Amino acid sequence: MSDRSSCPIARTLDLLGDKWTLLILRDALVFNRRTYSEFAGSPERIPTNLLAQRLKRLVASGLLEKVAYQQNPQRFEYLPTAKGRAIRPIIKAMRNYGETYLEMDTETQEP
Amino acid sequence: MSDRSSCPIARTLDLLGDKWTLLILRDALVFNRRTYSEFAGSPERIPTNLLAQRLKRLVASGLLEKVAYQQNPQRFEYLPTAKGRAIRPIIKAMRNYGETYLEMDTETQEP
Repeated sequence: MSDRSSCPIARTLDLLGDKWTLLILRDALVFNRRTYSEFAGSPERIPTNLLAQRLKRLVASGLLEKVAYQQNPQRFEYLPTAKGRAIRPIIKAMRNYGETYLEMDTETQEP
Repeated sequence: MSDRSSCPIARTLDLLGDKWTLLILRDALVFNRRTYSEFAGSPERIPTNLLAQRLKRLVASGLLEKVAYQQNPQRFEYLPTAKGRAIRPIIKAMRNYGETYLEMDTETQEP
């Protein structure tokens, strides 16, 4: 898939289209997680190599900003930028869908 | 990632969290594509093995329904179910995001 499709949906999917990326953004935007260890502690248990790689990509694409919050030893946190915070309506639409159509009880998947 | 996380966002991502799946749903819901060859003709050029596999999964998870529309030779179309049509707000939120934050011109990615 080309990086800059003429379709804005395809462009958004190029940026987000991987479930770990969206779970990291959920953690940043909904649960206010900020540090590597907070992201690693999510119940979905993202493998640490994928977490490091996805955080790097989210910083490179301008959705998160990596900021040192402590020196000696230096520690970093990842803060959502304006471009990252604007993902919120997508995550909200996913939450509504999950709550309505995807029950936790596997026997009743329809509302 | 478990199939039935307690988080509705994670549950939705288990269902959708792959860009081809969401592009097929875009084609079905926004562009009214219905047949295998219509989906295969999308500008993003989904590889045919992935298309077949994703369509099967979308039928299995109840988002699309496979319906014979012709006999001799038998031909099928894939129609969105109510559970599939309910994805629309997610796709709409992605379109808004793409239009606002992801310009086609790679030099100007901010609005």
